[in-house]
Amino acid sequence: MIKNIIGNIDFIESLRGKEATFLLSLSNTKTANIAGITQAGIPGMLHLTPTLDAEFVTTGEVRSLENIAKTPKGVPTPALLTRAVHLLKPFKNIELLNLGLEIVPDIKHFKIHNFDINPSESIDKGAFINAMEVFQKGISFATDYDPKSDYVILGESVPSGTTTALATALALGYDAKDKFSSSFKDVPNSIKAQVVEDALSLANQENELFEKLGVTCDNMLLFNAGFILGSMQKDYKVVLAGGTQMACVLLVVNSILKTMDGNIDSSKLALCTTKWVYEDCYSDIEALLKMLDFKIDAYYSQFDFSLSNHPALKLYDNGEAKEGVGAGAALVYGLLNGLTKEQITNKVESFLQ
Amino acid sequence: MIKNIIGNIDFIESLRGKEATFLLSLSNTKTANIAGITQAGIPGMLHLTPTLDAEFVTTGEVRSLENIAKTPKGVPTPALLTRAVHLLKPFKNIELLNLGLEIVPDIKHFKIHNFDINPSESIDKGAFINAMEVFQKGISFATDYDPKSDYVILGESVPSGTTTALATALALGYDAKDKFSSSFKDVPNSIKAQVVEDALSLANQENELFEKLGVTCDNMLLFNAGFILGSMQKDYKVVLAGGTQMACVLLVVNSILKTMDGNIDSSKLALCTTKWVYEDCYSDIEALLKMLDFKIDAYYSQFDFSLSNHPALKLYDNGEAKEGVGAGAALVYGLLNGLTKEQITNKVESFLQ
Repeated sequence: MIKNIIGNIDFIESLRGKEATFLLSLSNTKTANIAGITQAGIPGMLHLTPTLDAEFVTTGEVRSLENIAKTPKGVPTPALLTRAVHLLKPFKNIELLNLGLEIVPDIKHFKIHNFDINPSESIDKGAFINAMEVFQKGISFATDYDPKSDYVILGESVPSGTTTALATALALGYDAKDKFSSSFKDVPNSIKAQVVEDALSLANQENELFEKLGVTCDNMLLFNAGFILGSMQKDYKVVLAGGTQMACVLLVVNSILKTMDGNIDSSKLALCTTKWVYEDCYSDIEALLKMLDFKIDAYYSQFDFSLSNHPALKLYDNGEAKEGVGAGAALVYGLLNGLTKEQITNKVESFLQ
Repeated sequence: MIKNIIGNIDFIESLRGKEATFLLSLSNTKTANIAGITQAGIPGMLHLTPTLDAEFVTTGEVRSLENIAKTPKGVPTPALLTRAVHLLKPFKNIELLNLGLEIVPDIKHFKIHNFDINPSESIDKGAFINAMEVFQKGISFATDYDPKSDYVILGESVPSGTTTALATALALGYDAKDKFSSSFKDVPNSIKAQVVEDALSLANQENELFEKLGVTCDNMLLFNAGFILGSMQKDYKVVLAGGTQMACVLLVVNSILKTMDGNIDSSKLALCTTKWVYEDCYSDIEALLKMLDFKIDAYYSQFDFSLSNHPALKLYDNGEAKEGVGAGAALVYGLLNGLTKEQITNKVESFLQ
């Protein structure tokens, strides 16, 4: 039920029965305000998606808006999957990373780490991120952090994050065209392509790596790249919970290491995503991971909604939504701890009744 | 579903809901190379059995050979049971003890403790073990060990280990004839009896306890006897996961204590085995345990394959295979944590499809 993308099965098998902390990195980029660029949220309310995802995963309630985030076609947020697993086999902790949110989640008793990071600007005009600063905040957080569990699952919710990821990978010189996922089945290529092209022409005016990154990135990409490098000095394992956006985090790490002539012991690091990302014919996560100069183990959960008749859930199997809010790694965590596809399906369906 | 052999149910009930570390002691004795002495493995490849068992329990894959270890009649290794329980209700940790393996398991990310112990020789010519040294390695490992869980389940995979156990119990003067189990239903008594007789005649030329043990034992028996004595100084409980071989480990402890005029607080120690061992009419684990001068709680899982129609699994119910790789204690652990006979049966069957 857990399959390799690259590497072998040992890393993830060694986490069977272990306790995980779920860290959810949350950020807004104004790129999401460009009409038609993403369906990760409610039109006109896209900036609320990470806030609502965080509220729902932690409390089961959506507080900063009346209804849970749905896309225009009615695909519910992948947070449903993460929440379902958390109900059936709870994470040891859930903690939130505020990496520039418009609206802070309305929750108590859960730790929200704040880093004085602002939402970033739309990349077609330049993101205006102090990339080095955000990156270093990721390093120092990871260096100081004690997860009080056996490993960390690092998820994200960033509307239009695949657009910033694509622009970033291209700006760094990777052959990433047509390899990045989208929350859409039928990717709105013309809008996205124009935004990426505009961002790239701005980035190409810069010479320094971190200057380029400051134009094309969102805060999540930079902070998590720092988090990975910081965590390598600690003794906890890290599972990157996401698809092509998390692959882009690794590409950022790779480029920074090259620039600094550094290297990484990646044996404590892996990536987990969904079957929907792995099988997506509009993107190619395996190709992205193979561009790395270090080895990485990557996995996907075999979970799909073949046991469900719910029309909103069948959309996942048809290629909408695919991943986010750590859904793929949450599913892997559930499967590692004895949950069945049937249990998870039933729990997700219970949210939609 | 969990039954007493001797003692009462309280020890094992106190472990309900607790987290267990599964330690698997692995060793080769060249006794297994004697034709027809064991069916725990593939003819000509018997030395690979503990290696393959360890690979399968940890990763679900058999790497040092193409197919999972089966006996000539097609009885698959009891590792199937241990793995099934681990998938349904994971152990907190699995760690391996290399007590003289021909081939080290091909796995990463799982701890393999190494002790510079070599495979032992065939007991009909004398095992040539430095018994005191191996025993003391067991003591010091247990004394230093921190399982990071509530208790330890100590299993074993040693091809032809019942032969070395029988020879050892007899060499120590216990009335152990016809009380030791075998991986066969129809025990090849003539071959086994001759090997044991040869070993005994060599052992009887020795006067010292540890000299005798060095002739008849395998490394597992000695190391685990040391482990038990070492662990008694610590605050974790130990479940010996096995049948008559683990009973022999206790007999070794008993003889050493007698020689040293020592005693043991055995209240943190118990033994768990399978129904197949308990009901075996060719052996008598209860009688072996009653020879001890200290009290011990011992249990068996009521699990059998009555819910399965798979011909290879029905062989267990007919008296083949019986125990190994901690299967009995793994089943008890599963039952203690709410697993049903049906769940376990289905999971084992899924490996054979």
